[in-house]
Amino acid sequence: MKAIILFGHGARDPRWREPFDRLASLWQMQHPDILVELAFLEMMQPSLEQAVASLVAKGANELTIVPVFFGQGGHLRNDFPLLLEECRVKFPNVQLRATSAVGDDDAVLQAIVDFGARAL
Amino acid sequence: MKAIILFGHGARDPRWREPFDRLASLWQMQHPDILVELAFLEMMQPSLEQAVASLVAKGANELTIVPVFFGQGGHLRNDFPLLLEECRVKFPNVQLRATSAVGDDDAVLQAIVDFGARAL
Repeated sequence: MKAIILFGHGARDPRWREPFDRLASLWQMQHPDILVELAFLEMMQPSLEQAVASLVAKGANELTIVPVFFGQGGHLRNDFPLLLEECRVKFPNVQLRATSAVGDDDAVLQAIVDFGARAL
Repeated sequence: MKAIILFGHGARDPRWREPFDRLASLWQMQHPDILVELAFLEMMQPSLEQAVASLVAKGANELTIVPVFFGQGGHLRNDFPLLLEECRVKFPNVQLRATSAVGDDDAVLQAIVDFGARAL
């Protein structure tokens, strides 16, 4: 069973996660058959491992992790691969794939350009 | 003359800014009459003040700043308003407006959902 994890940075201020909660809700509304969990690198719960465990407990065994980051710096190039590898070791029977960062996607960038254009 | 500033967090790894450079290029291609500058909160140049100065030197006097952040935590709720106020003091004849974070925009969130759906 497929599932998706939307992986963000995390922040001290709990209000920071509002768009992530909206993202997860949007996903679940539009893709009701594919479970979704948020996960955070730091300062927020659940961790990547907790999110994987939660989805596996619900029967998922093909997980796609989408890094909801703009740029790919140290967090995605160094920290994230280590976390992913730890999850692969802990859940050897689960297929774990990661996409590139959402900031690499032309449509995401175009939506940002359009947002700016509407605001002028 | 209107101009836009795309304001991001910044990171140590210079490759982190790639999507921001693409954003600025996309903007300039699609809106050739409206100058664009990137600006960063930390670890990358230019700063917000430097970006404002650069645009003002080119004749801009109506600046819209778009925070290219997902969530609104301490950076946008605390740090950014102070930087914005400093710019208003330094450039009293320039109109400086800021939008909400791009993560508040439904179309941006939808583009992220669609990116995830294509990756499954």
